Amino acid sequence: MQPILSRENQKIKYASKLKNRKFRNSEHSFLIEGTKILEEALKCPEIIVRIFVDQTKVEEYQELSEKHKSLEWYSVDTKLIEYISDAKTPQGIVAIARQPRCLWDELIADSNLFILLDQISDPGNMGTIIRTAWAFGVDGILLTHKCVDPFSPKAVRSSMGGIFNVPIFSSFGRQNIESLKEAGFSLMCSDLNTNNNYYSLDFNGKIVIVIGSEAHGVSNHIKTQCDIFFRIPTNPQVDSLNAAVASAIILNEAWKQKMDSSLFQ
Amino acid sequence: MQPILSRENQKIKYASKLKNRKFRNSEHSFLIEGTKILEEALKCPEIIVRIFVDQTKVEEYQELSEKHKSLEWYSVDTKLIEYISDAKTPQGIVAIARQPRCLWDELIADSNLFILLDQISDPGNMGTIIRTAWAFGVDGILLTHKCVDPFSPKAVRSSMGGIFNVPIFSSFGRQNIESLKEAGFSLMCSDLNTNNNYYSLDFNGKIVIVIGSEAHGVSNHIKTQCDIFFRIPTNPQVDSLNAAVASAIILNEAWKQKMDSSLFQ
Repeated sequence: MQPILSRENQKIKYASKLKNRKFRNSEHSFLIEGTKILEEALKCPEIIVRIFVDQTKVEEYQELSEKHKSLEWYSVDTKLIEYISDAKTPQGIVAIARQPRCLWDELIADSNLFILLDQISDPGNMGTIIRTAWAFGVDGILLTHKCVDPFSPKAVRSSMGGIFNVPIFSSFGRQNIESLKEAGFSLMCSDLNTNNNYYSLDFNGKIVIVIGSEAHGVSNHIKTQCDIFFRIPTNPQVDSLNAAVASAIILNEAWKQKMDSSLFQ
Repeated sequence: MQPILSRENQKIKYASKLKNRKFRNSEHSFLIEGTKILEEALKCPEIIVRIFVDQTKVEEYQELSEKHKSLEWYSVDTKLIEYISDAKTPQGIVAIARQPRCLWDELIADSNLFILLDQISDPGNMGTIIRTAWAFGVDGILLTHKCVDPFSPKAVRSSMGGIFNVPIFSSFGRQNIESLKEAGFSLMCSDLNTNNNYYSLDFNGKIVIVIGSEAHGVSNHIKTQCDIFFRIPTNPQVDSLNAAVASAIILNEAWKQKMDSSLFQ
């Protein structure tokens, strides 16, 4: 591994700037931190731009760096890792990865199940939803522009590798709703005022599950386009669930129905 | 509202010290922040010790303070709110509340469904699980001593009022397992190596659902005492779910079964 000693090094400066959303998105790149997520990323090594290892932990990552020796590896001072890392207690390894490209026409051509997130602002929730979507076989995650960046360091960490495994379309707008409808998708939206329990719905077919923010619910211009409304029954004292929890309960039901129906095919 | 001007004021110093776990637990008190959670707390006003309002927002809280005028209200400088608050962007109101007492014998005498959390370290997950447990009618939350403090500011915020509505027993140990078994409880534990899908289980009766940390799973001394093992089926590429997500899926199933069985009674 080549050493980097100074904070003035261009590669270090570039990495640190990726903590900024605008810079991430103009560069189509993002930071990944920690061994588990890096290992997930390395299943497709061409997305990795370069990797920085804390010089006190070089031995720990020796095997991994030899396995992927065609990649750019750098050993850097602990202080530099802290400088480019977003975590409170950095794990000693930070990499730069390319954001996967997600083209709308390709995405809808071969998909059956999407989750559409509207105004989800908490990065931990965003990452957890991405992780859960991966676990339950979602074909793509659609985000309105008011959502938190799914490539923010905390969302990436919470996604536990989901970020590399589920296509994410980040600029969902009105014209995409029309395009979904033309392609035969039904939009299903959670609503406190319906008596339609989620488990009485059929999740087979072409489905978009719509989840709004806890603070603002689903935006009106999306809600009026929805075809089916459902609720998750709870103790009546409680008026809402965490957005990641509500997403998980619905996606788990969709996955269960898909598994059940595949048993009979 | 009485004004407090100085950081040296004993009540301000006391509030700030409640950000520390040891102090919270020796005082059996904790901080609550934000309007929504305070309103939930005020359903049982005797748990409130005192309330601090940002002096620039006194008008906003005029109605609430008049409704609860027997409580101690103080108007304080914005800087003092920031000093006692744990939030990045304080909402302008911080209160001190008493921790509800939770006695083991009373707790198990009249309960059917517990969730036992082992080594859950993330305060956001802890709060989300408390919120979800409230939504799905859990009778009590049992915590091993390696768990994060459920009365930490972030857990309290994420619980969205659940902290006041679900009994929490924080010092769960070996002797409590014996006591649960004597009382007729079955312990159900998630396990990646079983073929027992969670939805094939019967959650009626006296049940303890055991959820371990994502990093370490369920401790061996608890696992060996469990009666039933289950899994949540997922895409086989994904080896685990977020602890709050796994809890939600199981608790939702237990609630669904309880509702279904009450329909037939």
